[in-house]
Amino acid sequence: MRMYDLIAKKRDGETLTKQEIEFIIDGFTKGEIPDYQMSAFLMAVYLKGMTNEETAQMTLAMAHSGDMVDLSAIEGIKADKHSTGGVGDKTTMVIAPIVASCGVKIAKMSGRGLGHTGGTVDKMESVPGCHTSLPQKEFFDQVNRVGISVIGQSGNLAPADKKMYALRDVTATVGCVPLIASSIMSKKLAAGSDCILLDVKTGNGAFMKTIEGSIQLAKTMVAIGEHNNRKVAALITDMDTPLGYAVGNSLEVAESMVVLKGRGPEDLKLVCRELAANMLYLAGKGSLETCKEMVEQAITSGKAFEVCKQMFAAQGGDTSVLDDCTKFKQAAYQKQVFAQESGYVASTDTEKIGISSVLLGAGRQTKEDTIDFAAGLILHKKAGDRVKKGEPLATLYTEDETKFEAAEKMFVAAYQFCQEQPKKIPLILARVTTEGVETF
Amino acid sequence: MRMYDLIAKKRDGETLTKQEIEFIIDGFTKGEIPDYQMSAFLMAVYLKGMTNEETAQMTLAMAHSGDMVDLSAIEGIKADKHSTGGVGDKTTMVIAPIVASCGVKIAKMSGRGLGHTGGTVDKMESVPGCHTSLPQKEFFDQVNRVGISVIGQSGNLAPADKKMYALRDVTATVGCVPLIASSIMSKKLAAGSDCILLDVKTGNGAFMKTIEGSIQLAKTMVAIGEHNNRKVAALITDMDTPLGYAVGNSLEVAESMVVLKGRGPEDLKLVCRELAANMLYLAGKGSLETCKEMVEQAITSGKAFEVCKQMFAAQGGDTSVLDDCTKFKQAAYQKQVFAQESGYVASTDTEKIGISSVLLGAGRQTKEDTIDFAAGLILHKKAGDRVKKGEPLATLYTEDETKFEAAEKMFVAAYQFCQEQPKKIPLILARVTTEGVETF
Repeated sequence: MRMYDLIAKKRDGETLTKQEIEFIIDGFTKGEIPDYQMSAFLMAVYLKGMTNEETAQMTLAMAHSGDMVDLSAIEGIKADKHSTGGVGDKTTMVIAPIVASCGVKIAKMSGRGLGHTGGTVDKMESVPGCHTSLPQKEFFDQVNRVGISVIGQSGNLAPADKKMYALRDVTATVGCVPLIASSIMSKKLAAGSDCILLDVKTGNGAFMKTIEGSIQLAKTMVAIGEHNNRKVAALITDMDTPLGYAVGNSLEVAESMVVLKGRGPEDLKLVCRELAANMLYLAGKGSLETCKEMVEQAITSGKAFEVCKQMFAAQGGDTSVLDDCTKFKQAAYQKQVFAQESGYVASTDTEKIGISSVLLGAGRQTKEDTIDFAAGLILHKKAGDRVKKGEPLATLYTEDETKFEAAEKMFVAAYQFCQEQPKKIPLILARVTTEGVETF
Repeated sequence: MRMYDLIAKKRDGETLTKQEIEFIIDGFTKGEIPDYQMSAFLMAVYLKGMTNEETAQMTLAMAHSGDMVDLSAIEGIKADKHSTGGVGDKTTMVIAPIVASCGVKIAKMSGRGLGHTGGTVDKMESVPGCHTSLPQKEFFDQVNRVGISVIGQSGNLAPADKKMYALRDVTATVGCVPLIASSIMSKKLAAGSDCILLDVKTGNGAFMKTIEGSIQLAKTMVAIGEHNNRKVAALITDMDTPLGYAVGNSLEVAESMVVLKGRGPEDLKLVCRELAANMLYLAGKGSLETCKEMVEQAITSGKAFEVCKQMFAAQGGDTSVLDDCTKFKQAAYQKQVFAQESGYVASTDTEKIGISSVLLGAGRQTKEDTIDFAAGLILHKKAGDRVKKGEPLATLYTEDETKFEAAEKMFVAAYQFCQEQPKKIPLILARVTTEGVETF
């Protein structure tokens, strides 16, 4: 088998066999296939596509390029969740404890912040003392004992994906459904859970800008799961505006705890409840209706919040900040941004809001940057809200006063105003399962 | 400007500007753009194409990546010719002297054998003493004095093409019209002639297998010439069967001399006369009819043969072998290949015949191989010919008896027989000029 012929085959729109795909992924991971051949292949995939079967085979080959985590030491059904990434997306910290409190195990590896979007691991570390790196035995023990552990990615998970992503990132081959789907799902397959719920964000702050693209991506990922004997479903959720009001690490933890205590922003509550119910449904806990009731019960009974505290405590976290979020270290400086006109917020450029938060110190601009856990922003007005000139749109928080200027400039540029009340966009746009696509 | 954005632009089927194309070619030549980005770009070009304007701009940028030969020290109009390569294609040695004898200057750089096709420079070196490497001043002086010089490629001609071709060769991006056209034409533009006649071979022994593909390639190259103020035209000629009967270096020189003396195989004679007349026409020597008469006259008067001998003499060659080709060093071994059945030769796989000749020692299998100038083969039966079982199909020549086995096996595999006389394919299939396409 020669890589040349396989590039030519994909270039001509033909379908590759399992053996051919394994040859490519294996050879590239080992460095036997050079970057310049792989990038030509990736461009051919970008422009000619892949069948669901090819994509599923490639995903499995990518998963098998490194460690395949064996979760069999953990009793019961294990569920995982993945979000394609958004601004103010703190759902993991809400739904993982809910699901765990309902008896489905969460042995989850999460990521750090990337670009304008935050990461669960960074947010968790804003709880004083909390560590997100555990040896495998401790990780398993905690899940068996508490029902849940969320840690950073460890081990050698899907190195093929890491290498492929680095190449796609510099060859304009990122935004392609089979390549995005295999990248996400290879890590999820390797991480070992039985059920995987995907939160595919759509809109201006998300990777996929259109509902059609998001549904296509979701269908491909569900097909990959089906092909590899995992239970996979996806919700397509709105990311035309940040989720909730808080953007930043401890700010988002605080908002999450409010939701776990039964209050909080309506949009965040709704999305979290839908995601949690769908995870329970995937794990076979009953009809979707039953699962929604279980979620409700887990929150009102205080059980979910209790499990969340147990998780943080098990990972060394000071849970007093969870009980009383005012105990979080507060940012040294805060500043309000005011509306320059009256009307309605027509739309917000979610990516710009995310970047504004990064500029305040809540994210990394280079890999070496450290995060200010207290930095970020709290929105006061979101898309659809009525606003009067001079009212505050948001409060910005930082440890370094000099950061306000650039952050505020970026933040102001995110807001568009109009005179008529804009239409509301539904929060949950579609649900994709092996049975098909439901749109709302 | 970032290469990433330019890859994305071409990936999305957009048209690149002159500045963008220059950025790519210049950056790649200098090593500032890495292979893996260039190969993704080349695959995008392969699948999304380029406009004639983009192709012309890329070709000029590739030509300017190295030396641009200035032929102004040579008086009069300079004409060049390029063949896309075939088996038994010895036309340069016939038509260049014809054209030079009619007063159009030939200051030509030619190539060596590549794969299954031979090269003019190798063939010329089969004339004892002939050298094909001249300092520029001597090259120019010879053209001014004798009217013609044919040498190997010297200097740093279109290094961008060399680098791009090496990458295309391993990334399945060779067979793409804008890339083939720019590769050929960048070297021709850099070589400096005013008029360029292209011989686009079509058929099983050629790079382009179909007439449609050949016409497309020819049109693109003519457009490149027009865009860059050169006079360019193309003939599409058949390469479903070798041209003439001789394949191999001194064997082909001998056959060329026969044609220059007014005799020789009809197909070779016809193609050479058409090519020569079209070169004279491009150089403004009159109507195509007038130019055909000039070609006829150049041969029958013996002037063309005389100029050919002057060229070889000027380059150190022993011209006695041209007067009497039996004086060429003969191969140590010869062997006939006989027909195993009666009927007609339905078709010949021209590439296999070329490979058979290489196996006999007439070409290089690796860059380091030396060529046996006397090796090769003489066909006795070609496609369309009637043949009786036991009649010789060809005579094979070699300096190394052990080479017969593989060469004969390859040769025999090239022949297909049938019982009904096959249709004749025209030798000249089309003519492409700035005025349009004429098919025959």
